[in-house]
Amino acid sequence: MNNFVYYNPTKIIFGKDTQKNVGDEVKKYGKKVLLHYGGGSIKKSGLYDQVIKSLKDNDLEIFELGGVVPNPLLSLINEGIKMCQDNDIDFILAVGGGSVIDSAKAIGGGVKYNGDVWDFYAKGLTCTDSLPVGTILTLPATGTEMNFRSVITKDDTLEKRGASFPNPVFSILNAELCATLPKNQVANGLVDMLAHVFERYFTNTKNVELTDYQMEAVMKSIIELGPYVYDNPADYDKYAQIMWAGTVAHNYSLCVGRETDWATHQIEHELSGMDSSIAHGEGLAVLFPNWMKYVYKHDVDRFVQLAVRVFNVEEDFFDKEKTALKGIDALINFYKRLNMPLTLRDLNINEDKIDELALLATRNNTITQGNFVKLNTDDIKNILLLSR
Amino acid sequence: MNNFVYYNPTKIIFGKDTQKNVGDEVKKYGKKVLLHYGGGSIKKSGLYDQVIKSLKDNDLEIFELGGVVPNPLLSLINEGIKMCQDNDIDFILAVGGGSVIDSAKAIGGGVKYNGDVWDFYAKGLTCTDSLPVGTILTLPATGTEMNFRSVITKDDTLEKRGASFPNPVFSILNAELCATLPKNQVANGLVDMLAHVFERYFTNTKNVELTDYQMEAVMKSIIELGPYVYDNPADYDKYAQIMWAGTVAHNYSLCVGRETDWATHQIEHELSGMDSSIAHGEGLAVLFPNWMKYVYKHDVDRFVQLAVRVFNVEEDFFDKEKTALKGIDALINFYKRLNMPLTLRDLNINEDKIDELALLATRNNTITQGNFVKLNTDDIKNILLLSR
Repeated sequence: MNNFVYYNPTKIIFGKDTQKNVGDEVKKYGKKVLLHYGGGSIKKSGLYDQVIKSLKDNDLEIFELGGVVPNPLLSLINEGIKMCQDNDIDFILAVGGGSVIDSAKAIGGGVKYNGDVWDFYAKGLTCTDSLPVGTILTLPATGTEMNFRSVITKDDTLEKRGASFPNPVFSILNAELCATLPKNQVANGLVDMLAHVFERYFTNTKNVELTDYQMEAVMKSIIELGPYVYDNPADYDKYAQIMWAGTVAHNYSLCVGRETDWATHQIEHELSGMDSSIAHGEGLAVLFPNWMKYVYKHDVDRFVQLAVRVFNVEEDFFDKEKTALKGIDALINFYKRLNMPLTLRDLNINEDKIDELALLATRNNTITQGNFVKLNTDDIKNILLLSR
Repeated sequence: MNNFVYYNPTKIIFGKDTQKNVGDEVKKYGKKVLLHYGGGSIKKSGLYDQVIKSLKDNDLEIFELGGVVPNPLLSLINEGIKMCQDNDIDFILAVGGGSVIDSAKAIGGGVKYNGDVWDFYAKGLTCTDSLPVGTILTLPATGTEMNFRSVITKDDTLEKRGASFPNPVFSILNAELCATLPKNQVANGLVDMLAHVFERYFTNTKNVELTDYQMEAVMKSIIELGPYVYDNPADYDKYAQIMWAGTVAHNYSLCVGRETDWATHQIEHELSGMDSSIAHGEGLAVLFPNWMKYVYKHDVDRFVQLAVRVFNVEEDFFDKEKTALKGIDALINFYKRLNMPLTLRDLNINEDKIDELALLATRNNTITQGNFVKLNTDDIKNILLLSR
């Protein structure tokens, strides 16, 4: 077990109707609010009206910036920064999914930074000063509602990069808001949150029995409740648990004291960066089983543990590899159950893009990805070939 | 799943040698520090010298108040409050186990309160304003290092009560400091942290599959690693996991969205309140199996789940009660392995005290205890009779 620092001051307000009192929370931090959101779905669902009412009931002055797209763009962030600076806005309320929240974090940090906010992303730096950001989460997936990460895309180069910012000061989570989510968004969210656990589970750090068990608890919940929620997103009590699982999966409580991996996320960033019609969850569903098949011999016992404890595979004590591979097959079946793509072909990515993707993922062969197994350009190419 | 608010802003600094930089953290909050501790063990171990050095290296002015006893006393807390007020102390550093930290929380709240700090305990109120408190934990058990609770005892009446205070601003956890703990303290800590999970696990709230799994993860870790740590407290990597399990068990992350019980803790408070030579863990080891035997029929399935998932009991699908009782037997065996007392007789509590204890636990038959099953005076008497 490694030394660690854990600090997570986001206040979570969880449950039915909680979004209706958002103004009570916002007024603790500011008077002029930038309401930041995506497309029109929050207007159609009535959430927008509820938020506006609560903000007005608390005498808050409202500025609006909608239009956040999946893979949120630097150009809109810069627009938001200017709006905040021109109007002395002192609070940002993000209402939406992970893209809206990541965009809000960038705006909050950019307002306080004397320079181009992309600097933080270009160099993977940590921004320590920000306008306070609060969130109302509408799509459980990325975990950004209770962590310090933000991933955005630069419009001109389509580079997709991450940086660190202060956590949201509060996040409101109400699974009632998920009842009308399109099925593919539910599925992408499930794949993403499960992947956040995988990236932490595969480690070379020893003496991590406790966090192994804790991660298996979250993975089992996602795998057991996920398909039901996919079929029945309006079942509050089940989706509420999935919503919380998504937050816990990526609030950094599960990986304390252990090295984490993140190679698959890095490769996926290049995939959905190359074609913005590919959802992050779709790319992960294609890549993760093939990453696993490529690296499992590095620590077969860990893959056996995953298979037995999480996927209820009957262990073959005389053939560990067989057990490990059955676990990976069970993961593929989980993705199939959610109608996820399973190959690059399913994503309309042609084989001739593989070399380019592998080079992008290693910054032209200058870096490796991952920690569990360090992957060079050839390794990533091989994983992509397995993913055809 | 119930609505909930979760907010836990304690910064955890975890790992080897971390106590040596405590001054770097303290100076973020204050200049004049009350160093609060118990008996002489931190002086014998060298920890005291390390702390003093780091505080002095950071130009902090040090005031000292030692002498905290298990079941910390209001009289010493009042002395601490006066010291802080007389000397404009602006930070409290608690170095020790749960008693020292609970005492420090009370001092911190009392300094800012215009009245008797016991008011919060007498009425079970929440104190929202406090001097900042930081901690260096030397005995993993109570979880107070990352929560808002404090339990103290009033000297004259021996009443033992709890209240709520702001969380510690930071807590330093280094399992190297546990290497020389006496065996009985290691064991009491293990029993206490396991009990903190039990109090949350037994619930009537439905749709709690995720938090069930999360609690089982922590319980399995304590049960599997605990006996080894009892035998080998100097094994850093194993004790570090137990230390973190003790924190997670009681940092309120495991019980989000579910009703909790706490009857056994309440009864135990009367037991160790009656005889201060009884450690909290000892009382819990005597009471918990008998509480379980008394209430298990209320929800046999939940006890079967505990037996099968946590204690690896082979399920008898045709005799659930048998399975449930095997789980309780496994718990008793765990306590035996740690050389814990198992009966009131082992605690030198005579049978003729049972009526008095049952009345104390229900404030003279005016309240019930617990939520999983509500216990009146007769119920508690019956549990104590089972515990003879």
